Amino acid sequence: MSTEQRRILVIGIGAGDPDHVTLGAVKAIGRADVFFIVGKGPDKASLTDLRHRMIEEHAQGPYRVVEVEDPSRERRAMDRGEYAVAVQDWRGRRGELFERLMREEMTEGETGAFLVWGDPSLYDSTLGILADIGARDSIRPQVEVFPGITSVSTLAARHCIPLNQVGRPVHITPARRLSDVAQNDDGDIVVMLDAHESFTQVEGDDVWIYWGAYLGTPDELLVAGPVREVADRIKQLRAQARERHGWIMDIYLLRLVGMQTSGDAGSQT
Amino acid sequence: MSTEQRRILVIGIGAGDPDHVTLGAVKAIGRADVFFIVGKGPDKASLTDLRHRMIEEHAQGPYRVVEVEDPSRERRAMDRGEYAVAVQDWRGRRGELFERLMREEMTEGETGAFLVWGDPSLYDSTLGILADIGARDSIRPQVEVFPGITSVSTLAARHCIPLNQVGRPVHITPARRLSDVAQNDDGDIVVMLDAHESFTQVEGDDVWIYWGAYLGTPDELLVAGPVREVADRIKQLRAQARERHGWIMDIYLLRLVGMQTSGDAGSQT
Repeated sequence: MSTEQRRILVIGIGAGDPDHVTLGAVKAIGRADVFFIVGKGPDKASLTDLRHRMIEEHAQGPYRVVEVEDPSRERRAMDRGEYAVAVQDWRGRRGELFERLMREEMTEGETGAFLVWGDPSLYDSTLGILADIGARDSIRPQVEVFPGITSVSTLAARHCIPLNQVGRPVHITPARRLSDVAQNDDGDIVVMLDAHESFTQVEGDDVWIYWGAYLGTPDELLVAGPVREVADRIKQLRAQARERHGWIMDIYLLRLVGMQTSGDAGSQT
Repeated sequence: MSTEQRRILVIGIGAGDPDHVTLGAVKAIGRADVFFIVGKGPDKASLTDLRHRMIEEHAQGPYRVVEVEDPSRERRAMDRGEYAVAVQDWRGRRGELFERLMREEMTEGETGAFLVWGDPSLYDSTLGILADIGARDSIRPQVEVFPGITSVSTLAARHCIPLNQVGRPVHITPARRLSDVAQNDDGDIVVMLDAHESFTQVEGDDVWIYWGAYLGTPDELLVAGPVREVADRIKQLRAQARERHGWIMDIYLLRLVGMQTSGDAGSQT
């Protein structure tokens, strides 16, 4: 097989609010001939619907939508702690899928598009998978990225708070790395992808949580307060919401309050 | 004085590319009666111009623009390491300015707007200052926040890379805290507000830098490579650009490459 090029737009569409789409993303949607929608199973059908509605609203001229099922992850391997292996395997199968889509569902002269929740740079595999495909030399994606509003920014906006305290770092981490990151320093911590309610493990009276679920959608839930006081309420809301929707997408910020801000001064120049 | 309310929109407008404005930000600009533009001195006039152009393009109906000088920071105090004190002092004076603007330059029935570069939640003082004013009880701002595309997301998009490696954290830090954060863990590090070229202090052959300046503007500069190999080129570009524009806004990602990804597995569930 010869190497063929494919023009691919990777478009960040924000965390759920249709108004979070940028003017650049709107123009990019208008340029695409083919949209690839990788579904996450029937439980997240409402997320797929939202992408369809965005395409309908912003597309210019004729377009096609190719919808496929996401390869399933080896949940058991992940629960056994073989996280890296399970992710690598899943990425490999996703890569084969993407390569087939680019080869069979579009031509060299066309423009394909992947619509990505939030921002394509943050805990999303699309860019990495396209880079892997490019390195294999059978299909070479020419990728253009349109940044999106992250769920991190959306969480802060809805709580009307800054992410960082003055002069301090911010850490963004998957929940499974929270215990490492919590030992770092005085920076705030944004926790994503928390399937195990890790916030219930947080110790100390001086830690606040700013929690949000289904951000930017009509189902949005927000809770803020000292984590000791509000953890049970968040657990309860999560259980109820999961029952009703069949899935949950949430994120939270952990902030140390009441620390000496003078600890900031002179640490480095 | 009685407590008066003021409706204030804090609008993230992205990192410099007019196409990074969201549909929500466009609508918010259309709702405002008064825009407050806090200038950073003549050297950054082009940034102020860009805000003016965005307002002109998206405003609906009559509006006013109130432009003021930013209170100057005590640079010498900051260089002496009295960072927290200098910032607190500057924030206090900025707070007095904002309070005066809200009291004298708009009425209770009107809507005021601050246009913030990038995202209002990340290393920007507007939300914190408005919260301070609200706590003082003479003017109470009713704040609505519109998240924006960060320079962090823009950097990743322009380099076409993810910010995080699979399953690992991402740290965002002001340059003066880089040496703390660099000791944390295997996560990638985004460095902002680096006036002292801290990347030249980075050690190790396995660290890559993805650097960008004037992101999203026609003057955009990008360099990527092993930090040992490209640090001199970045220094040279910074010096030339600073000479030409009179100011520079840059940001970079530091990434450990070639580390065992199996180090990811099983660290926490």
